[in-house]
Order: sequence, then C-alpha cells, then structure tokens
Amino acid sequence: MTEHVQIRELAEHVGDDVSVLGWVHNLRSSGKVAFLIVRDGTGLVQGVMSAGDVSPEVWERLEGLDYEASVKVGGSVREDERAPGGYELSLTDLEIVGPSAEEYPIQLKEHGVDFLLEHRHLWLRTPRQVAIMRVRDEVVKAIRDFLYEQGFVNVDTPILTGSIGESAGTLFETEYFDLGAAYLAQTGQLYNEATAAALGRVYCFGPTFRAEKSKTRRHLTEFWMLEPEIAWCDSECNMRIQEGLVCYIVERAVERCRDLLENELERDLSKLASARAPFPRLSYSEAIERVQSLGSSIQWGDDLGAEDETLVAQDYDRPVFVYNYPKQAKAFYMKENPDDPRTVLCDDLIAPEGYGEIIGGSQREDDYDRLLARIREEGLPEEAYGWYLDLRRYGTYPHSGFGLGLERTVAWICGVPHIRECIAFPRTLNRLYP
Amino acid sequence: MTEHVQIRELAEHVGDDVSVLGWVHNLRSSGKVAFLIVRDGTGLVQGVMSAGDVSPEVWERLEGLDYEASVKVGGSVREDERAPGGYELSLTDLEIVGPSAEEYPIQLKEHGVDFLLEHRHLWLRTPRQVAIMRVRDEVVKAIRDFLYEQGFVNVDTPILTGSIGESAGTLFETEYFDLGAAYLAQTGQLYNEATAAALGRVYCFGPTFRAEKSKTRRHLTEFWMLEPEIAWCDSECNMRIQEGLVCYIVERAVERCRDLLENELERDLSKLASARAPFPRLSYSEAIERVQSLGSSIQWGDDLGAEDETLVAQDYDRPVFVYNYPKQAKAFYMKENPDDPRTVLCDDLIAPEGYGEIIGGSQREDDYDRLLARIREEGLPEEAYGWYLDLRRYGTYPHSGFGLGLERTVAWICGVPHIRECIAFPRTLNRLYP
Repeated sequence: MTEHVQIRELAEHVGDDVSVLGWVHNLRSSGKVAFLIVRDGTGLVQGVMSAGDVSPEVWERLEGLDYEASVKVGGSVREDERAPGGYELSLTDLEIVGPSAEEYPIQLKEHGVDFLLEHRHLWLRTPRQVAIMRVRDEVVKAIRDFLYEQGFVNVDTPILTGSIGESAGTLFETEYFDLGAAYLAQTGQLYNEATAAALGRVYCFGPTFRAEKSKTRRHLTEFWMLEPEIAWCDSECNMRIQEGLVCYIVERAVERCRDLLENELERDLSKLASARAPFPRLSYSEAIERVQSLGSSIQWGDDLGAEDETLVAQDYDRPVFVYNYPKQAKAFYMKENPDDPRTVLCDDLIAPEGYGEIIGGSQREDDYDRLLARIREEGLPEEAYGWYLDLRRYGTYPHSGFGLGLERTVAWICGVPHIRECIAFPRTLNRLYP
Repeated sequence: MTEHVQIRELAEHVGDDVSVLGWVHNLRSSGKVAFLIVRDGTGLVQGVMSAGDVSPEVWERLEGLDYEASVKVGGSVREDERAPGGYELSLTDLEIVGPSAEEYPIQLKEHGVDFLLEHRHLWLRTPRQVAIMRVRDEVVKAIRDFLYEQGFVNVDTPILTGSIGESAGTLFETEYFDLGAAYLAQTGQLYNEATAAALGRVYCFGPTFRAEKSKTRRHLTEFWMLEPEIAWCDSECNMRIQEGLVCYIVERAVERCRDLLENELERDLSKLASARAPFPRLSYSEAIERVQSLGSSIQWGDDLGAEDETLVAQDYDRPVFVYNYPKQAKAFYMKENPDDPRTVLCDDLIAPEGYGEIIGGSQREDDYDRLLARIREEGLPEEAYGWYLDLRRYGTYPHSGFGLGLERTVAWICGVPHIRECIAFPRTLNRLYP
C-alpha cells in the first residue's frame, strides 16, 4: 500500500508513489489522457492519467465521476511549474470512495447568494470559501498567541445571563428552569471586569448575539467577538494595545496566508502593508467636522453611521481611531471624560477602504456613584447589576477594554464585502439553516 | 515617578524602586512595622513598612485599609527566600486607589458554597480560584497550539440552530424572528462534518448547552467543549489523536503551571506524570464484565454510569479507553461496527482517580441509507437533517471526531472535585447569577 499524504505535503514526496484522498474538483478528458483535479482541504493537485498506463477497469471509473465525488488516487509525484500548486501526480490508480451521482448542486456557473447560503454546507468546499476559513483560523490563532505572550488570561464568560448587557430590545430570550428568563449575552465585558480584578489582564473570545432586525453587509445575529479587559490601563493605554494587536494580526495573516490572500482572494496586499502603527487619531469632534465638510448631515451628539465611518476612513491608508464620543451615543459603562463631561473616554477603530468599525473600546466608569447614576438614567434593572456595582465598592480600579469583531476584521483582511462569508454558518434575520 | 511593574516581573527589578498596583490580600501590623500582602493577578508580594521610614500621613493610611482595597505601593525590591514568591518590597509609599470600606464579604473563614457562588465575582479573586483559571487558560492554549501544529483549522459552529443536535428534551429554545424556534447547540459536530469535507481537519471550541435537570458535580448547563472532526480517519486513528492530545495538554499544564498546581492546588503531580501513552483500551463488553465482577448491576446494553466509570478507571494510573458501545446506548450518527452490528465504532476516554469521562468520540456513519434509517428510528425531524444527509450524498468519506469537555479536563488536572470551580461563572439548574 502506498503512503497517504496530504496535498500540502506533496513537495516532500517528489518521485514517490503516494495516494491522495480527496474530492473531485474538476475533470477534463481528451481522448486517451484525462486531467483530474483533486482537492483535500489542504490544497489542490492535478492528476494526469493516460489510458495506456492503467487497466481498462480503472480508466472506465472516470466515466462515473462527478464533481465532489470522493476518491483515492495513486501515482507518483512530479514537480511541474505549470501545475496548480507546483506538483502533479502521474496517476496509476483511481478508486471511487463515495460517488456524487446526482447532479452536484454547486456548478461552476454563477449562483445567486440565497441559493449558495441554502447550500452553505457544500458552498464551503469551494476554494474561495476555503481560503476565507483558513484566514479566519490564522487570525484567531494570531490573536490568541499575541495575548498569551502579553500575559493575558483567557476567561470564558457566560452566554446564558440574567438581564444584563448592552441594550434591551435586541436580546434573545430563553426559559431557564424555574429561574424565569435568561438572555443570550451580547458581551462578556461586564463579567471580565470582575475577573480582571482577579487576574490583571484577561480576555474572552466567543460567540455573541444581537436580535437586531438589521439587514446590512456588516451585521449578523450571531458573531464572534474578542474582548480583552485590562486592569490599571487608561484609555490611552487601551488604544496602544489595540494598535499593537491589529498590526500583529494583519502581519501574521499576510505572512502565513499570502498565497490564499493574493491568489485565491485577489487581495491587494499593498493595502494591508500600510496598516502600520501609529494609527491616526481623531477626536469625535474633529471627525464630525471632517464628515460635515464632506457633506454628511450628522450633528454633534449622533453616533457615526456606516457612511460617516467610510468618510472618516477615506483620508487614511490604515485604520483610524475616533475617540471620546458624546456620552449619549455610547454605553452606560464608559468613563466620563474629566476634561469634557459631555463625552466619555472611548475609541472606535475604523478600518480603511470602507470596511467600517472593527473595534469599540473604552475606559470603564470606576466611580460607584457615577455608575449607579448612569444605570438609573438608562432605566436598567438595578438589582441585576448588584454584582457589577460591587466591583466599584470593593477596591475599584482604573481599567479599560475593547471588543474586536472577528468577522469584520476577517472581511477587511480578506477584502470580502459581506461578513456573512467570514463565518462558517452565518445567522441573519432570515437564515437559520443549514 | 517610579515604574509600574507586575508582581511576576519583580525578579527583573531587584534593587530598583518600583510601584505595584493591586489589591490588599492581607495586613498584619506589630507596632511600628506593618506587613502588607498585595496581589495583582500575576502573583502575591509582601511589602514591609516601618513607621520610621514613611511620613505619618502615609502610615495612617494603613488604618483605613480593608481586604481587597486597591492600592498603589512604592518601594524597593529585595530578594528574600522566606517571602512568598521570593521577593519583598521595602515600602516607602502607599496610596489607596479604591477603598473597601464596608466589610468585605469573603473573609478568611470558611464560607458555604452557595454564599461563594452568589459572590462568584469576588470569590474569583482568591488564590485557589486564580490558580484554576490560570490552569484552564493554559489548557485552552495547549489545545489550540497542538491542533494548529497538526494542521487543524478552527471553524466556529453556530449556537443558534434549527432542530438538530444530540437529543431533544434537553434543549434551550428561543424565538428567532419570523422563523419560529431556534435551539442552543449541544454540539458543533454535525456542522463540522460538513467543513471537514472542505478543509480536511477541523475543530470547534466554544460553549455548548444542555437544559438537563442534572445536579451532579460533573454537570453544568453551559460548558465549553472542544470538538475536532477529521476526514479520512477511522476509529483507531481517532483514538490515537485523542491520546496524543491529552498527553500534550497534561504535560504542558504541568510544565507551565507547576507552581500553581503543586503549591496552590496541592495537586499530587506524580498522578499526572503517569498519564502517558499508550492508554489502556477495553472493549465495552470487557468493561461490563469487569464492573460486574466488582459488583455493579449494570447489564450489557446499558451506558456506563458515573459509578461504573470509576470502577473501570480504578485499575489504571492513566486515562482508559472504553470502545465500541452498544448502538442503543449511543447517538444516531455513530458508525455501525462491521464486525458486530450490535455495536458502534466509538470510544469514551475515562480519566483516572474517579474524574470520569473527559472525551466521547466516534467514527461517523458515512452510509446514506444506514444514516437515514437511524434518523427515522430515533424519530428525529428528517427535514432538519437534509443538509447533513447531503454529506453522504455527495462524496461521502470516512471520518471521525470527538468531544473533550474542558471543565472536566481542567478538574482532573487541577484535582478539583466539582467542575463548577473550573469555569468563571458556572451555570447550573439553580444558578444564573452573577
């Protein structure tokens, strides 16, 4: 029996007889020679089969071969510059493991996005989707490596929560035994404000939920968010950590996924090369002036919308910080700015090229009385925040943190316009299947 | 201004004047000398203050100091073998950042577990809980490093799902816009059977949910599970990967968290040192015979209960595989054993010392007709499994995977009897707060 090797390992097996297990990506035949492209999740390889080199029985198996049939092919590995991936197989054997007898739903022609989403379990097999998933994986690993090296402790926060979070009205609700309603967490931040007082620097990184009726290319009802929380760190320190993290992620993705980005996703890597520290910084008021001068009707006090973000970003070749927003536009837990109490100590990081906000961060309100007043102003259920207020009652401390949207970050790095392609099984207003 | 250093960095600052930001862990005073133990999440350090060395104003601040007040202390770093952590601060300054004026709820005396769980946000600050959280973090990082090195791609699977999963009746349910009910996923496996056909080797690692009315020391309603799924891998290959992963995790945790395990958690590390491959393997039938001989009333066909698992495990100093359970005791998606169709190709990995099952794995049923028959036998909603059946319709392939319970694994490594201490904010039948 020949050795089973993954396609990405072929370079180490030039001249060897090997077998590859995978799926039929394409098949062309010209009389007595067939060109069979097989993929196995680690790459694509072309196999060349001559009718004269194999038994009639093996040659006939080509007839029954449809897209995405699973196969075991055997042959010797040849280096060939012209071949996709740089290596080719001279085939001597072919076994069909699992046929794909009916017409395979996803053909090379263009399909509508609804059709593709309905067949997401198969759409994911196409090279573009494989590339996005691999970049996502690299981004996740880069984030975790960066934080580990910096002494952050991963603390997973609960999804099932009492009535606590960013905003009511956009919460998914479920019955929780005899305890009444539980809500799916929109953030782990509040919980990790507790654990940062135990461990110093912490982060959670998991799914978060918004029951929002938004139908934009930047919204999902379920998405992954990284949320570091840092003890003894003010807003300035917070922005420095964000900057360092984002630079690291982009550099790692470009370094380790260059081929996928450049060739499969056709990403212009020069646009990512400019994402270097320091990132420009604009105060909210400066940003408002700028977008007003560009024709936006936004007024001081409003949050920046997607279009305003694009206007702010167009002046820069790298992500830009907009900091210190008006209190009314932001969440209750952000710390009042001592130099301008109309505003809070916070920042949004806006990606270039119209990819929009990828990070929202802030210094947290660490004053018990101010925080309680804000909870009351917002009409939040005070009793649910008892433990959160305790953090200001027992050894309160300056701390900051931020949330990085994983799918938005991957969309920017990959140059993908819609974040629904940046998660394996997107959940939107109209989609819960597959 | 003196440099702010973390306690774990003190070794690099011997002889320097530094400041440490943290919380008061303990305070003893004998007339003119005070001993102040501060923790900052990275460690504990003792500061020694002599009344003669500081201004009366600073000395008086000691009076107002309660447990868990947050402080900034300044002083010079001295090496001292007798000190906890090996270094001491000769204090010259003390500022109270956030007092802890009311009596701090958690005192050095013993508290009941309900009281501690109600104050989980503060309980987490105690050294034992800090140690468990740090070991958990190391285990998570070790898992991700291991899989990354082995070419696995992290693919996050959805939490919000249609009616698909392990078993009805133990699902949390939520309204999903106009699409009716959605359920919180009990597993990501089925989704990653699709992505393994796209990417080869994949894993998800996130929260999973069971609305079970179980009240045991091994159950949570929300817990984290690692689920690798591996293309072209049979049950034998699956067990080898599990074995390699578990050995790696244990070795990494012992290597990088030795001090916490040995000194804070008082774990007998010799018990972990024996967790080396190969792990013993027992067929289900052999396991039944053994536990019957030890007095269990279990019958062939029953799943092993917690007590049976403990009986099986007591013969070994390392985890033990029990493989090929009866079909009736296991999930519908497990592949029928061709050598004994009463059983399926699966394995449970049972930790030693009574910590119970930490992994459940199986080869998946890759035959369309057999899988459909099993779905019908179990009375599962066939239409919801349309996409899952597609994986057997288009290029079916042999594949296997497993689920590793994170909290159970951490409990075993830490030697903690109840898994509720192995997650930051445990969710149980009676607990949704904090």
